[in-house]
Amino acid sequence: MTYQEEVKQRFLDSGIVFTEKELASIDYADFGLKRLDSEGLNLIVYENNDRYCAKEMVLLPGQTCPEHRHPPRNGETGKRETFRCRKGNVYLYVEGEATDTIHSKIPTGQEVYYTVMHEVELKAGEQYTIEPDIKHWFQAGNEGAIISEFSSPSDDASDIFTNPNIQRVTK
Amino acid sequence: MTYQEEVKQRFLDSGIVFTEKELASIDYADFGLKRLDSEGLNLIVYENNDRYCAKEMVLLPGQTCPEHRHPPRNGETGKRETFRCRKGNVYLYVEGEATDTIHSKIPTGQEVYYTVMHEVELKAGEQYTIEPDIKHWFQAGNEGAIISEFSSPSDDASDIFTNPNIQRVTK
Repeated sequence: MTYQEEVKQRFLDSGIVFTEKELASIDYADFGLKRLDSEGLNLIVYENNDRYCAKEMVLLPGQTCPEHRHPPRNGETGKRETFRCRKGNVYLYVEGEATDTIHSKIPTGQEVYYTVMHEVELKAGEQYTIEPDIKHWFQAGNEGAIISEFSSPSDDASDIFTNPNIQRVTK
Repeated sequence: MTYQEEVKQRFLDSGIVFTEKELASIDYADFGLKRLDSEGLNLIVYENNDRYCAKEMVLLPGQTCPEHRHPPRNGETGKRETFRCRKGNVYLYVEGEATDTIHSKIPTGQEVYYTVMHEVELKAGEQYTIEPDIKHWFQAGNEGAIISEFSSPSDDASDIFTNPNIQRVTK
């Protein structure tokens, strides 16, 4: 099974109903790093307008969304977002006191780009809200994860990643 | 089974994972009408902050959320909301050209309070966005419905219902 087929199957197995059009337009984000198995994120965007945004995300087991923050833009506060774990579990890292021993394994050779270590574990049914401009990254547990995101509007192009090699959106 | 037990069971059977705290705080909204089986709505609010809101809603078979709109408030545009049907089906009515023969049965004796008849059917996986200040009401099909709502902030107290006897929030 290809990477894309595995991701699509996880959306299909999630218990959430998607349209054919949504399944055909999954965003397999590799952040320009071309190592999707370790650093990647897979998204279906339900709605993204000038007031709010809602998405469904799949992470494969151990897959990591690299550290980034949502800065202010056009004179407005940056994106606030709520992650709600639907299936599996995810370890989320935010600014704050570093957790002594984190559960995640930082992608090999990329340690310098992962700087916040305050760990929050989300199991199915649990959620956490990340305030604007707070650095964060997250990694799925051994079974992978399905995560809903509710947020203010998304503008991927304005995200600031700690790894300067990352391009979330091809410009 | 009481009304409340039936609603809770539908949340449990939805395939969506909720916390015990969420299940204990279901909002069984009767709009002050005291006829929940015909006009009512059952909600779990995930998040409602000053920028966005997300909820999960249960409607029993044939249950109706009465006609209302979300007007501007405090100088800001009224609430915009996206309904996404997760299970069952729901008939949504909004302003616009009246549909010749609608699928829903308007609650008996309440016909005068249901004035918009442009029908949109949402099956599982389908969604629709209602613009601010647009009158709307909705009724579940024969199997009931689970509906996610993504929106700008919710402020139930400012909703304007066509039926002047309705109080969404006890003041």
